[in-house]
Amino acid sequence: MALIVQKFGGTSVADPERIGHVADLVKTTRDAGNQVVVVVSAMSGETNRLLALARAVNAKPDARESDVLVATGEQVTIALLALSLHARGCPARSYTGGQVAIRTDSVHGKARIEQIDDAAMRSDLAKQRVVVVAGFQGVDEKGNITTLGRGGSDTTAVALAVALKADECQIYTDVDGVYTADPRLVPDARRLDHLTFEEMLELASVGAKVLQIRAVEFASKYNVPLRVLSSFAPGPGTLITPEDPSMEQPLISGIAHTRDEAKLTVVGVPDKPGVAYKVLGPIAAANIEIDMIVQNVSAEDTTDLTFTVSRSDFAAARELLEATAAELGAREVTGDDRIAKISLVGVGMRSHAGIASRMFKALAAEFINIQMISTSEIKISVVVDEKYVELGVRTLHSEFGLDARSETRR
Amino acid sequence: MALIVQKFGGTSVADPERIGHVADLVKTTRDAGNQVVVVVSAMSGETNRLLALARAVNAKPDARESDVLVATGEQVTIALLALSLHARGCPARSYTGGQVAIRTDSVHGKARIEQIDDAAMRSDLAKQRVVVVAGFQGVDEKGNITTLGRGGSDTTAVALAVALKADECQIYTDVDGVYTADPRLVPDARRLDHLTFEEMLELASVGAKVLQIRAVEFASKYNVPLRVLSSFAPGPGTLITPEDPSMEQPLISGIAHTRDEAKLTVVGVPDKPGVAYKVLGPIAAANIEIDMIVQNVSAEDTTDLTFTVSRSDFAAARELLEATAAELGAREVTGDDRIAKISLVGVGMRSHAGIASRMFKALAAEFINIQMISTSEIKISVVVDEKYVELGVRTLHSEFGLDARSETRR
Repeated sequence: MALIVQKFGGTSVADPERIGHVADLVKTTRDAGNQVVVVVSAMSGETNRLLALARAVNAKPDARESDVLVATGEQVTIALLALSLHARGCPARSYTGGQVAIRTDSVHGKARIEQIDDAAMRSDLAKQRVVVVAGFQGVDEKGNITTLGRGGSDTTAVALAVALKADECQIYTDVDGVYTADPRLVPDARRLDHLTFEEMLELASVGAKVLQIRAVEFASKYNVPLRVLSSFAPGPGTLITPEDPSMEQPLISGIAHTRDEAKLTVVGVPDKPGVAYKVLGPIAAANIEIDMIVQNVSAEDTTDLTFTVSRSDFAAARELLEATAAELGAREVTGDDRIAKISLVGVGMRSHAGIASRMFKALAAEFINIQMISTSEIKISVVVDEKYVELGVRTLHSEFGLDARSETRR
Repeated sequence: MALIVQKFGGTSVADPERIGHVADLVKTTRDAGNQVVVVVSAMSGETNRLLALARAVNAKPDARESDVLVATGEQVTIALLALSLHARGCPARSYTGGQVAIRTDSVHGKARIEQIDDAAMRSDLAKQRVVVVAGFQGVDEKGNITTLGRGGSDTTAVALAVALKADECQIYTDVDGVYTADPRLVPDARRLDHLTFEEMLELASVGAKVLQIRAVEFASKYNVPLRVLSSFAPGPGTLITPEDPSMEQPLISGIAHTRDEAKLTVVGVPDKPGVAYKVLGPIAAANIEIDMIVQNVSAEDTTDLTFTVSRSDFAAARELLEATAAELGAREVTGDDRIAKISLVGVGMRSHAGIASRMFKALAAEFINIQMISTSEIKISVVVDEKYVELGVRTLHSEFGLDARSETRR
């Protein structure tokens, strides 16, 4: 008998029929002899409906009251799923975040979980009941309702798995696992049976938005096996675990890409200590997230600094940068908001030299110019002109043997 | 400075615009120097929408989970009203029933309030904040969400007024007070400035559904002045208080009527002790509410027993009665589901003889036949053919001088 935490997102519980389907999946897991804790999100569209009501009465809704409001979304789903399980003869009991209790700090809208009381859930599980918990929400020490922010239901699921020492945390989504590349771009992309936490983190951070980074980090920290599977199509999904040294690691597990990037360069700034801080400080202070940063080797006593931001922040970042450039006496500011990033991810590349040069050679053979390069221990990212993104991803997918039809490689 | 509890029902908070209007009313009361606690219901239609979702997943929804589900209705409203008050520069803080806490027993769907913790509300009031509380809901000692049943928001308001020793509990509705008769029937009906609890209870029990009986009983028991007013039209409404012996009581305060009644008679049952129980026991056991009961003086050794039930229970009650009649050897069962009840209510009638005969004489003058009569200390009810209801109410309204244009009588 295993203890399994299952999480279903908004599209999986979008209407009574789908909730019934989720109840079938949960009951199957329980009837196989497992203890099951289910975490659910609000029915898709519900959170936005509630936020629209809030904005209709107040242009700048207070965070505490917004949390009281949106927390009702998951509360509706837990009751409906419990009722749907009852209708199938499966005993079940619902819990709001406050009822568990999932104790958080008091930062409304993006609270962090501090502590989880597992007593009530344990007592229900011992009585063979399915425990249905509202995702995304908690309660602070004064009893105020808090929410964990976007994607918070994944975090709730992992946190419950940690607190209950669950054997597996299953995240049901609308895709049936993690793929070697986006199947919409690469028809030959394959579902991966297995990934390490590190690989999942790199893939998530470069655009394969199957799981929230925060949930993966959390699961990684506490070594809770995560499984990504589809609530619509049956299958084993992708299992994500700590690295197993006995297992032969493939060179590359997947190729991720993002399109919504923009690049800014400040040309000819004095090459002195502190210049990077002076350039990037105001951008960060404006809450604009900076992704890649590249500083060229300086020619004479000036240097060029290039960085990427989200495309939606391009105009604001450029304006800030122009001001800084004038202050520092830089030669000019250039920018390009038609770029894309392609990343190769795999724990195997750690022990293999030559991956980067093989990547660059394959791209050059297709006349794809590389504008920026950034590397981590298990990832190599390149920035290219946006028009090359499909060609680039497909080229690398073939080059590194990910096209193979079999799924036996791992 | 007074402490005022204000309650707004579902139609008063039906959409963001109306919630804004409620916020205006609340702010006006607070700006006049009062401390204000507001109790709100779910936006009209919301509870039914949620119950329809429940039935879509489970034909017989469990009471605990139904409470978790429908309690979200009021939770949405408290957040929206708090946000709407903020938008008007009025500090406010929302509380669910559980957050207050409003402690109830564990009878889901019709819980009774056992205790209210006023500490958090007092602290907010001291900080000049408006306190916004979800009506209709509470929490049992184990932290399960409970609801108080239909009309429970009125009960919440009165219970909070009692716990906080409020100066007045104002119930906002879609009518601007309690009238001497239904204005749709009697165009000359007048709004009453003042009523006693006893009168309000009798009026409520005979069809003037302005307030829930339970809330009036509760307010009466703890002597909390109640005021009924309209959230749509300005005005002082009707104040309901304990009887003031120094005040001259009018004979009659109002005339109420109900149409949805039906009458059943079992004819020729043996006139023995216990026969009323044998006849009515099975009806009560089937959860059919019995209103008036009349037993005629027995002729020979048999008697006739007549009682009224709600029209919707007529068929079921008749079936039960036929079975009992056969068992007891009664002569026959007769019934009529086209009856109406007209009631005269007033604390003044206590000290005045002749009210009943004056009532009967006035009805006789219009050739309205009286089928049944029932009296209490401050009420006389008659059952008549349904077709006479308008004529009967108007006749009595004139007869007892309620038509007067002035509102100065009280």
